Amino acid sequence: MPSRRASDRPRTAAANRLVVLSGATSGVTGAKPGAVWLVGAGPGDPELLTLKALRVLQAADVVVHDGLVSDEILDLAPASARRISVAKRKSRHSYAQDEINLMLVAFAREGLKVVRLKGGDPFMFGRGGEELEACRAAGVDCQVIPGVTAALAASAGAGAPLTHRGLAQAVTFVTGHAAAGAEPDLDWASLARANHTVVIYMGLSTAAGIAARLLAAGRGSATPALIVENASRADERRIVTTLAGLAEAAEAVNGPALLIVGEAMSLAQAGGPDLVEFVEARGRERGVNQ
Amino acid sequence: MPSRRASDRPRTAAANRLVVLSGATSGVTGAKPGAVWLVGAGPGDPELLTLKALRVLQAADVVVHDGLVSDEILDLAPASARRISVAKRKSRHSYAQDEINLMLVAFAREGLKVVRLKGGDPFMFGRGGEELEACRAAGVDCQVIPGVTAALAASAGAGAPLTHRGLAQAVTFVTGHAAAGAEPDLDWASLARANHTVVIYMGLSTAAGIAARLLAAGRGSATPALIVENASRADERRIVTTLAGLAEAAEAVNGPALLIVGEAMSLAQAGGPDLVEFVEARGRERGVNQ
Repeated sequence: MPSRRASDRPRTAAANRLVVLSGATSGVTGAKPGAVWLVGAGPGDPELLTLKALRVLQAADVVVHDGLVSDEILDLAPASARRISVAKRKSRHSYAQDEINLMLVAFAREGLKVVRLKGGDPFMFGRGGEELEACRAAGVDCQVIPGVTAALAASAGAGAPLTHRGLAQAVTFVTGHAAAGAEPDLDWASLARANHTVVIYMGLSTAAGIAARLLAAGRGSATPALIVENASRADERRIVTTLAGLAEAAEAVNGPALLIVGEAMSLAQAGGPDLVEFVEARGRERGVNQ
Repeated sequence: MPSRRASDRPRTAAANRLVVLSGATSGVTGAKPGAVWLVGAGPGDPELLTLKALRVLQAADVVVHDGLVSDEILDLAPASARRISVAKRKSRHSYAQDEINLMLVAFAREGLKVVRLKGGDPFMFGRGGEELEACRAAGVDCQVIPGVTAALAASAGAGAPLTHRGLAQAVTFVTGHAAAGAEPDLDWASLARANHTVVIYMGLSTAAGIAARLLAAGRGSATPALIVENASRADERRIVTTLAGLAEAAEAVNGPALLIVGEAMSLAQAGGPDLVEFVEARGRERGVNQ
């Protein structure tokens, strides 16, 4: 890699960016190479960003983000940064994964600092591995910044641990997403074992099938279950139910949601931020238990 | 709940704390109630704290912390905050879980803001559920702030996703910890299924037994495996090996470590500040099927 620095140029970020861009487009080899950061934006609450994610986001030239990343978080990037949504949309062009991969590599090759911002954690059902592989194949530097995955925020908000002495010795994370309305291809016998928490990402539309399969594989119908919609956001909503009631409960939910099934969910509290008091700066002024 | 504020007193944190303490000890009922926050400190790198964890930590009167929480993170609490380590120690008194529960409740009842600071996430092998239950039983307000669990940092650092299209449709987190040197009681047949990532927390001392059980249950000996010591810290060290080489590789590690087994670990890069390739090399010389 060329290491000559344009030290005779102004050192502001904006100026450096222009230098790099002109270097890339004119074939000058002294330009600083760009790079890609795969960044976990956490579950939604901007306060659940990590300090590192915030730092990298604030230095971004380009932010390529999912639909689940909120405007509050996108606003933390510099005003000058280009923002590109690659959200799945019904009404207009959706980017295929290959297109996203190419986009990340192309921006980095222009010398830009590219932040690929994903809800939750990039390596937990985020397809970050594919993007990292594309960068590696192209010789583009790529770093991964982990994030708080949605299940941890859902369990924290509900007060129901994913593992718990005597109730849950292990936890398995699966995706309920399946092609064309089919049921996901999962190891139902394993997931049906007692004292084992099962977290289903993107399982709302297949909840009925998932519940039926777990019941058929022997998981008890009274096993506690929890649905968390918009975990950690201001409009978070939690429904406490059982495996037998999961399908019906899921019909009442529209937003992005997690399903969690397991004995430890017996500790979960239904509600949302308006029902379960959050004791923070504002809460303290109002009195802790109001 | 009484909500009278000691607004006629000096408003510095130290002064408020004294007011509250004297109120509690003298039986005065106007004191503000305390509360407990179960806070995930993340995997080690202070930059992997969430903004919310930082804010709550900076408002703490008391910080009750595990041994895995670094001094850099503890330094973020106010200088006036009392710090209590409940780390497991061989040479002196270790706190039993019941004692920790009682301590949290007692401090909160004194009107203090109690931060229970745990490595990773409080609800992932952190026994946070037990502490939350103790607070609930005592009528003490308790909130949970999720954190980046170590496995996500380990996978991010290694560049190996926990889930990956075609290689890992699911991921299971278990603990390798077992009483008195015994092997953990796990569902080996489920964990032995291919295209499934298995993350073992606290599994270093039982790595040989775990590997043997997975092999006996049919998981391929050439299945990629990764050991990450001190994930996200300056002294992070990663060893890339196979299930067949896991036991031997684990012998080279002393610090807190995660074991990760699964096809997606084929993307992992060994290294850290000191490159560690030797176990992989030795594994190849011996042949992965031994």
